[in-house]
Amino acid sequence: MAPRTTAREKLLDAAVKLIRQHGYTATTLDDLCAEAGVTKGAFFHHFKSKDDLGQAAAQFWDERTGTLFLEAPYHDHEDPLDRVLGYIDFRGSIMDGEVHEFTCLVGTMVQEVYRDAPEIRKACRDSIFGHAGTLVEDIQAAMDQHGLTPSWTAESLANYTQATLQGAYILAKATDSNEASLECVAHLRNYVALLFANKH
Amino acid sequence: MAPRTTAREKLLDAAVKLIRQHGYTATTLDDLCAEAGVTKGAFFHHFKSKDDLGQAAAQFWDERTGTLFLEAPYHDHEDPLDRVLGYIDFRGSIMDGEVHEFTCLVGTMVQEVYRDAPEIRKACRDSIFGHAGTLVEDIQAAMDQHGLTPSWTAESLANYTQATLQGAYILAKATDSNEASLECVAHLRNYVALLFANKH
Repeated sequence: MAPRTTAREKLLDAAVKLIRQHGYTATTLDDLCAEAGVTKGAFFHHFKSKDDLGQAAAQFWDERTGTLFLEAPYHDHEDPLDRVLGYIDFRGSIMDGEVHEFTCLVGTMVQEVYRDAPEIRKACRDSIFGHAGTLVEDIQAAMDQHGLTPSWTAESLANYTQATLQGAYILAKATDSNEASLECVAHLRNYVALLFANKH
Repeated sequence: MAPRTTAREKLLDAAVKLIRQHGYTATTLDDLCAEAGVTKGAFFHHFKSKDDLGQAAAQFWDERTGTLFLEAPYHDHEDPLDRVLGYIDFRGSIMDGEVHEFTCLVGTMVQEVYRDAPEIRKACRDSIFGHAGTLVEDIQAAMDQHGLTPSWTAESLANYTQATLQGAYILAKATDSNEASLECVAHLRNYVALLFANKH
């Protein structure tokens, strides 16, 4: 038997789904309870407030996507640069389906409530930069292997990959298409390849 | 005497200010009227609805920033590649002050209401891609001058600059700082320089 989904998990799933479609502020507590099929009593049993759920949703998103990336095939490459390029290819491969299905919960939430919900901002920051951090070791290993001593750090390049992806999602939302966003992923890949081909 | 500011202009100014700080959905009609110092009657004299103002705000933003970029010094370079790199440097130079002062109105709005307000989505799309379009001629001239025949187009590189900038704003919002966003601008500049240095 599959493990029973708790009201907490149902609410977190509902938050991910609705906020990606409509934004954080537009998603009401009533919407979340209706989507999850739980009562308001159940909501307040698990969360102090909508912002409390928003913060938990960022952490939930981070854990769920963390597993997706941990199990992705790009880690299998022996060469560290191949792992970094494989990561970028993987990001392109999952830019598929409806725009709300491939865009980023935490990028959306932080865009909207960065000033008005500091705890959500911090949870989104930790998710974005924590994910970028998973790339640093491979980038540094590739830099060492290629003898790169550039003006930039492995960390700044890892952060740059996230900025490009977050911006690509904005182009996808603006055009209701993944076409422009996939072109951005191709440019990002080209940049990383050029950095290591040219030792800059 | 300075020209008199109309209620319409006051409401558009208020929209730019409040939406950049709090997002589109969180900014109410009451907030907009209070910030503009106009009555609801005045609001509905000029706009049919809040979404009508949102769409007009995207166009207003596009015109205002359009003037800023048109008058910026990067156009003065004789060499087209220098104009493109000068544009990127200019974008870095204006990532200054409070985060809400340098981030993008249309990137924020489209992130939030891309599904629920199609007219706002289209106005934001036109602003983002219209602005990208102002770079295409210089990029193409630089490609011609350097004999580049790459797999990518001038248009896709212009769009990529916008994705990087939009994503850099998300990092700025997540960190409440321009540090990570300026590092992204430096990587973008490095990419464009490498493309033309290596004819890729």
